Amino acid sequence: MMRNKQYDIKPEELSFNDCCTLLSNQYYGRLGMSLNNQPYVVPMSYVYSDGIIYLHSCRDGKKIKIIENNPQICFEVDFLDNNNWASVLTYGKIKLNNNVEAKQRMFDAFNNKGIQGHGGKRYKRKEVKRMDFVIWEMEIQEITGRKGVW
Amino acid sequence: MMRNKQYDIKPEELSFNDCCTLLSNQYYGRLGMSLNNQPYVVPMSYVYSDGIIYLHSCRDGKKIKIIENNPQICFEVDFLDNNNWASVLTYGKIKLNNNVEAKQRMFDAFNNKGIQGHGGKRYKRKEVKRMDFVIWEMEIQEITGRKGVW
Repeated sequence: MMRNKQYDIKPEELSFNDCCTLLSNQYYGRLGMSLNNQPYVVPMSYVYSDGIIYLHSCRDGKKIKIIENNPQICFEVDFLDNNNWASVLTYGKIKLNNNVEAKQRMFDAFNNKGIQGHGGKRYKRKEVKRMDFVIWEMEIQEITGRKGVW
Repeated sequence: MMRNKQYDIKPEELSFNDCCTLLSNQYYGRLGMSLNNQPYVVPMSYVYSDGIIYLHSCRDGKKIKIIENNPQICFEVDFLDNNNWASVLTYGKIKLNNNVEAKQRMFDAFNNKGIQGHGGKRYKRKEVKRMDFVIWEMEIQEITGRKGVW
């Protein structure tokens, strides 16, 4: 915003490493989808591991219908405070799976991150198999990041 | 997320009033755009007043080019903590203006909200006229909201 006349300060590009650090440090992002050029944005929890963004959802609903029509997405992750902002945009195609292997890949990513509470528990394979949700996996095709002051 | 097995709790719809309250209480949102069905999402500060979302940006850049091609957007505002989430989606078409009247409307919206620091200063008309940015105005055509637990 306009505080301290900082509105004329240009944003800076983030390096690839800074983009990955921000992705690794955050827990929530905003998923941008599009159907017939109508954008749709929802907040989702995620985990990032080795070039892959993992999301999950229930098996039906508006976002599943959109992804089945157009898997190309933009997943945005940011860090905002009153003075500064940093934002990373990742692009790619979503693959939906509800098999036990996909669920296990997501749990492994959570476990690798050492997240407590948020899926950090080591579930048994039969527990994972029973869980009734869909895994969203996106191999990042393009990543960009910027930071600036409000 | 999967804590306390709450992943099987369905989200609830927010009432219209709850949607407007969330819009009024927050300062940042995520703007979803689309060009040739490629989604694009950026965080933006905003102010909501009387059915209008006001944003602003510099005069050129990727998001301006996209909006000039496709003004239909989804502006998402949320409140997230470790346990709960609430999210409001607004839809409409962006109108871009850089005349002094549009700038004044945005400043009036900030002033009406009583925001300190973030544009809350009462600028003189000649100061507003000189400010080199574009005002984005969206009359909300559709609004929906949901809340849930991670």
